[in-house]
Amino acid sequence: MTKTIAIQGIKGSFHHIVSLNYYGSTQHVKECLTFDETVASLFNNTAETAIMALENSIAGSILPNYALIDNNNLHIVGEHYLDVQHQLMALSNQTIADIKEVHSHPMALLQCKSFFKDYPHIKLVEDKDTADVARKIETQQIKGVAAIASTLAAEIFNLDILAESIQTIKHNQTRFAIVNTQPINNHKNEINKASLKFELDHKRGSLATILNVMSDCKLNLTKIQSLPKIETPWKYSFFVDVTFEAYEDFEKAASIMTIMATHFKILGTYKNAKL
Amino acid sequence: MTKTIAIQGIKGSFHHIVSLNYYGSTQHVKECLTFDETVASLFNNTAETAIMALENSIAGSILPNYALIDNNNLHIVGEHYLDVQHQLMALSNQTIADIKEVHSHPMALLQCKSFFKDYPHIKLVEDKDTADVARKIETQQIKGVAAIASTLAAEIFNLDILAESIQTIKHNQTRFAIVNTQPINNHKNEINKASLKFELDHKRGSLATILNVMSDCKLNLTKIQSLPKIETPWKYSFFVDVTFEAYEDFEKAASIMTIMATHFKILGTYKNAKL
Repeated sequence: MTKTIAIQGIKGSFHHIVSLNYYGSTQHVKECLTFDETVASLFNNTAETAIMALENSIAGSILPNYALIDNNNLHIVGEHYLDVQHQLMALSNQTIADIKEVHSHPMALLQCKSFFKDYPHIKLVEDKDTADVARKIETQQIKGVAAIASTLAAEIFNLDILAESIQTIKHNQTRFAIVNTQPINNHKNEINKASLKFELDHKRGSLATILNVMSDCKLNLTKIQSLPKIETPWKYSFFVDVTFEAYEDFEKAASIMTIMATHFKILGTYKNAKL
Repeated sequence: MTKTIAIQGIKGSFHHIVSLNYYGSTQHVKECLTFDETVASLFNNTAETAIMALENSIAGSILPNYALIDNNNLHIVGEHYLDVQHQLMALSNQTIADIKEVHSHPMALLQCKSFFKDYPHIKLVEDKDTADVARKIETQQIKGVAAIASTLAAEIFNLDILAESIQTIKHNQTRFAIVNTQPINNHKNEINKASLKFELDHKRGSLATILNVMSDCKLNLTKIQSLPKIETPWKYSFFVDVTFEAYEDFEKAASIMTIMATHFKILGTYKNAKL
């Protein structure tokens, strides 16, 4: 059955690449220009599933996307890791000296900032989507403006790559979540990872106690991030990812954590995509 | 004795406000346009101390600044919390309808993105510093361009505020670190907070074990953030902040953690600025 997958960005964006890698090329893709729109697609039934970047190895967690998943009670049903390589591209027959402005997504500009230190004549301008800039450059035949986007975008929009892999940190792995409004009834033996959220009072040892439960139940921690609750001093939220071998171990830990932590919530259970 | 304090940004920037709040107005300020330059000032002796944003309640940790502190073996000698309020400002006698572009620091643009949904005619352009845009608008008398900056910047550069507190999340607390190349010999009874970094193997329960030590030594965890080590699969780094009542408790915990964790490092010990 063909699904419609909401992606942030247009075809050629990194979210599109994740969609192709995860679901193959036979699915419909719904292009959304914001993460809010991506999530809205799930609720107005214009898409069955959505793809959202969760974190990358440079900037860390994309907390606004965690908030979108949490506040809308979405379910993470899968994950995918992509090695994001940023290419500088423009209409053909131009050199970097011809480029006056580079337009891209704020995150892409941030990740490539160092590259432009050698080109002080180039102005960096924020735009909504990496691939959409590539598209505009082609359709409007804009000279003097370059895009930072994927190799796929250069192919789709017939642009020349002026410089390859211009991001400062060459291994630039981004983790994406596949999210639905409902959990998928996967076979329990296919599930070996979970994303959790809980709150703790600022009481000495409260996190250690929870981690002891996780450890006793044979869960491995692969990510932890504390977030102070701004409106409630001395209350902390935690986003935690765990992997496990037996789903029963996870169920046991979850039942104990529900009692021990405040607002314990399973954001999703899915198959670990990291080898 | 007058100190020179390196800040990211020019006078009127949020780092300048932190410098005024923390050290008062009698100190010299060295304006730096990047965090790299801020750090370099400490090593070429053009400044004795530097101020760097570490995290905010919206985007979370500013990991590149943690990396700068860690890689340069700087010492966090103090912290300061600032409630960052972004004002939209321009030359007088203009309305928002006259504004065609808003230039600011990427983080400020990100934090105010929602405000501009109602003004699709306004283009958001990245610049190096919030206050520097305000300065340029005044010195070059640029019409049609607005800055997002502090109230102090509007005062210094005689700009009119077109819209107040335009950031999406109204409580926008940012935590700043005061950093030196050497630790300050504070009285131990004035120190009640520490920033730590350590690595752990991906072995079940390894973090729980460390947190148990911290808890047993009466340390309170106020922040934890895991970072996968990209080059070394299954190795994790952790940035952790702890508060304590007695410095001896911290010393005891540190001596145990040095043995238990890999690359245990104290990024700084200082006075907790959070009430």
